[in-house]
Amino acid sequence: MTFQFKKIGLIGTHVNPLVSETVCQIYHLLKDKVTILIEENTAHCMDEHKLPEPYKLSDIAENCDLAIVIGGDGNFLNTARNLSTHADIPMIGVNRGKLGFLTDINPDELETRLMSVLEGHYTIEERFMITAEIHSNDMLSGKTYAFNEILIAAGQKSRLFELDISIDGRHAFSQRSDGIIIATPTGSTAHALSAGGPIMHPSLNVLSLVPMFSHSLNSRPIVISADSIIKIAIGDYNNPEPLLSFDGHSHLTLEAGNTIQVHKHQKKVKVLHPLDYDYYRSLRTKLHWSKMLF
Amino acid sequence: MTFQFKKIGLIGTHVNPLVSETVCQIYHLLKDKVTILIEENTAHCMDEHKLPEPYKLSDIAENCDLAIVIGGDGNFLNTARNLSTHADIPMIGVNRGKLGFLTDINPDELETRLMSVLEGHYTIEERFMITAEIHSNDMLSGKTYAFNEILIAAGQKSRLFELDISIDGRHAFSQRSDGIIIATPTGSTAHALSAGGPIMHPSLNVLSLVPMFSHSLNSRPIVISADSIIKIAIGDYNNPEPLLSFDGHSHLTLEAGNTIQVHKHQKKVKVLHPLDYDYYRSLRTKLHWSKMLF
Amino acid sequence: MTFQFKKIGLIGTHVNPLVSETVCQIYHLLKDKVTILIEENTAHCMDEHKLPEPYKLSDIAENCDLAIVIGGDGNFLNTARNLSTHADIPMIGVNRGKLGFLTDINPDELETRLMSVLEGHYTIEERFMITAEIHSNDMLSGKTYAFNEILIAAGQKSRLFELDISIDGRHAFSQRSDGIIIATPTGSTAHALSAGGPIMHPSLNVLSLVPMFSHSLNSRPIVISADSIIKIAIGDYNNPEPLLSFDGHSHLTLEAGNTIQVHKHQKKVKVLHPLDYDYYRSLRTKLHWSKMLF
Amino acid sequence: MTFQFKKIGLIGTHVNPLVSETVCQIYHLLKDKVTILIEENTAHCMDEHKLPEPYKLSDIAENCDLAIVIGGDGNFLNTARNLSTHADIPMIGVNRGKLGFLTDINPDELETRLMSVLEGHYTIEERFMITAEIHSNDMLSGKTYAFNEILIAAGQKSRLFELDISIDGRHAFSQRSDGIIIATPTGSTAHALSAGGPIMHPSLNVLSLVPMFSHSLNSRPIVISADSIIKIAIGDYNNPEPLLSFDGHSHLTLEAGNTIQVHKHQKKVKVLHPLDYDYYRSLRTKLHWSKMLF
Repeated sequence: MTFQFKKIGLIGTHVNPLVSETVCQIYHLLKDKVTILIEENTAHCMDEHKLPEPYKLSDIAENCDLAIVIGGDGNFLNTARNLSTHADIPMIGVNRGKLGFLTDINPDELETRLMSVLEGHYTIEERFMITAEIHSNDMLSGKTYAFNEILIAAGQKSRLFELDISIDGRHAFSQRSDGIIIATPTGSTAHALSAGGPIMHPSLNVLSLVPMFSHSLNSRPIVISADSIIKIAIGDYNNPEPLLSFDGHSHLTLEAGNTIQVHKHQKKVKVLHPLDYDYYRSLRTKLHWSKMLF
Repeated sequence: MTFQFKKIGLIGTHVNPLVSETVCQIYHLLKDKVTILIEENTAHCMDEHKLPEPYKLSDIAENCDLAIVIGGDGNFLNTARNLSTHADIPMIGVNRGKLGFLTDINPDELETRLMSVLEGHYTIEERFMITAEIHSNDMLSGKTYAFNEILIAAGQKSRLFELDISIDGRHAFSQRSDGIIIATPTGSTAHALSAGGPIMHPSLNVLSLVPMFSHSLNSRPIVISADSIIKIAIGDYNNPEPLLSFDGHSHLTLEAGNTIQVHKHQKKVKVLHPLDYDYYRSLRTKLHWSKMLF
Repeated sequence: MTFQFKKIGLIGTHVNPLVSETVCQIYHLLKDKVTILIEENTAHCMDEHKLPEPYKLSDIAENCDLAIVIGGDGNFLNTARNLSTHADIPMIGVNRGKLGFLTDINPDELETRLMSVLEGHYTIEERFMITAEIHSNDMLSGKTYAFNEILIAAGQKSRLFELDISIDGRHAFSQRSDGIIIATPTGSTAHALSAGGPIMHPSLNVLSLVPMFSHSLNSRPIVISADSIIKIAIGDYNNPEPLLSFDGHSHLTLEAGNTIQVHKHQKKVKVLHPLDYDYYRSLRTKLHWSKMLF
Repeated sequence: MTFQFKKIGLIGTHVNPLVSETVCQIYHLLKDKVTILIEENTAHCMDEHKLPEPYKLSDIAENCDLAIVIGGDGNFLNTARNLSTHADIPMIGVNRGKLGFLTDINPDELETRLMSVLEGHYTIEERFMITAEIHSNDMLSGKTYAFNEILIAAGQKSRLFELDISIDGRHAFSQRSDGIIIATPTGSTAHALSAGGPIMHPSLNVLSLVPMFSHSLNSRPIVISADSIIKIAIGDYNNPEPLLSFDGHSHLTLEAGNTIQVHKHQKKVKVLHPLDYDYYRSLRTKLHWSKMLF
């Protein structure tokens, strides 16, 4: 049994005893076979009498040839965004959240499916991220990345919001709505799906623009090339606290008059899958397609 | 020509020269025929060399037998809510906003359709409002009315929100979503329609509960009796700034653990319509049903 | 133990060994306590060495004080429609189909929940049906009833279809679409729900009109009073084989130029429920509202 | 003024005096400048005292370097499908139907925008078609092309339909529904849009699979690569007359047990556009995005 990966980072980003338990199991399973670097917050949570040495995420990014992320899809997204600012390292997820689209390995499959991947039996899938740059008076005033989606929304205290969207330098449409979601194929099964956006196969180089409660009843989700440059100008109409949020949890404050430019991030996320990975099975299972109404 | 209404209030709630212009036209048209009471803010906006005496909204409510509201649907809603706290006075709208569902008379129809109504040629329609009471630790901590809808939404900074809805003392459903809209038939053509709710004929005694971006893909709008008592308990899950907004513009702050009780308001709004008023024509025109895709 | 019902009809309309098995169980459970009339096709399916005497459905309708229907929701609907042409007899369903909205009793609850109902521990719910009358050159050319919905659809070979809908004598809207569904509250959780219609509480006296793939993108489902008279005129535009289907399975052929009038049926269906019956629990369970996306 | 195109075919496929009128105008405008071949049915409709010589569509396909199609989007689709079986010839549309996505030139722009295109001021856009092959007992029993969409639907007399869809040799999902639409980007603004599918930019190499009234409430449209091989197996469940229709008007009969394979057609359709052509403006205008609800 030879291992393809010699130096492996372990990242379990959430304070959750089940995450720690799985981190420990993986640690003990692998520590005599490969070099393990445990991320500092992850190490901190481990309830071991002899704590392994903690490493910064940047050390893991630069020194490891694989990162194992233990947690849910949200943790995987956050880790992917954070690792990507340092280096280009393949990732695989062990699921400790709800049913995950990105975290293929279940905690009871460490010795089977995880091991199999580590021995080289895997496929590699590249997923892309997007970048949002906020411009205020033509000056860059903020910048962020997203793996799932960028959501630009009206301030809650007045849901009335006016956006002007241009694509590749051309006016595409204006919209009065609660906001807009710009989703990657990875994000197409997350918030954008709740908002009526289509599922988009992760192999596609596309983005969806999904209106949120548009005041024009015939607004519809639109799928465009991920190589497009999208510019969103925020109108002055009645919106005290607009907000840009990314991947569901983090946010940046916007102001009327801001322009947000969204485009593909140059770095890709490399996700490893066991050989029996099946995207459509994930869809069927997670979206409960077998549950019929009548 | 005899007038059915002897004392008429004029209310043009918005600082808008077109509203003032129409208020003046109505004033001059009617001042020698009936007693006119002009609401104080409305009077203030009139550009007359001899300003008519201004009256408080409560004076109009208690003394007039008709209120003419000049503005858009939003102004009509706000005036209806405010008048209803004082007395029970019929209302008719002159439209100075966008195409209105509630403001039947156009500014160029003052001498024809408005006059005809004042001479007694009208139908009277009763529309109901709803009340929302916020309870914090079993104490009433806030109360409001709505003519269109009550919207309970997650704090924007975390759109993840958990609600527990009971109807008439029975647990109905729990929901993880961006929020929920409870709409009257009057509000069924406003925000609730953007969110996928059904149009409900204004003669019906029903409410719709419309989920906003539910995490359960098979959540659907549900129509229930307007005599139901709806209780919405806000979960503790991850929602820093939940908010209750009513009729689109105003709001009350909520806290995790609050319960909101929504039920029908005991007072009704009496809306007068010209005899040729046609609800379905409003729908067709305003919703652009003649615009076909192919 | 006293029985409230003295003469009970058993109807198991589907050739299905599980239905027959449950029919036999109920027969043996009740035959010494009350008079049992077994419907003729049901009796025919029973694999007994001494077959009970078979009765026509009309005999059951006129002589029994309760009908127990064994099968799925579809069987319950059909039986309700057929019984209603004879007499007004309460019904209760024993579920042998998929998860049922109308068939409350499971086959393993015969001695508990079914018995409890027979002893008088039940609530009675009235549900209404609708009638569709087809008029050709002002002559009545066909008539049918529906418990769930009336669906008027374009001939499949050309899905292009033009309908003109009037409500209570007033033109409501014209529509180019694949067709339209007119659903009762009972039917609001069946085909109309797949088509985007709202769920409507069964206590409501309302109907929904749900467009099927309208060419106007801002067509929306509309909820109106069940006391309305709906007239649907089929245009001459390009529709070789229009069809009216009711409750999903049966149909009548239409012709261009036909007018279909839909109104409430004067007879109601009385459905018995065990005391622990809970409409919202049925919704939650059957619509899988606990299955979250994320 | 030099013409880039030397031999131009004129095709006005519909018996419509307005189409004939525009055909005549173009004929007289161009006949002294280039060689004109008028398609035989088109010539037949021209009300000229000296009828130009009629040509078969195949002659036009093989001999002309441009085809001008006069009519609506539907005529353009049909002509594109028919021309493509013969040769690879660029097309431009003059609109005589409703507002067209494919027919850029208005009848009053013949001397301006059409002329400008003929002089070489145009962009060329390639759009792809799809092929559907029907297999019965592993034998090819039918084959067709579609530019907009392939629609596979249940027999109308029983809308209950079971499909099994595989993509690139892998089971993707099973579905109980009224049917499924497989749309190209060109077709994404036609029937698929009415059914809830996303708009897809015509530059994309993608297809959408759009369920029609799925019995699983969480079925959603899915966007996949247009290089995928889609296989749809029709179940035996209760569907007397399934049908495959393409581009809205034509159809092939299916049988239970058939398998339909859908893949990209090897030939592309070359569509010429005036230099000021703007896809997003077409969307805005045709979908009435400026019509706001409130």
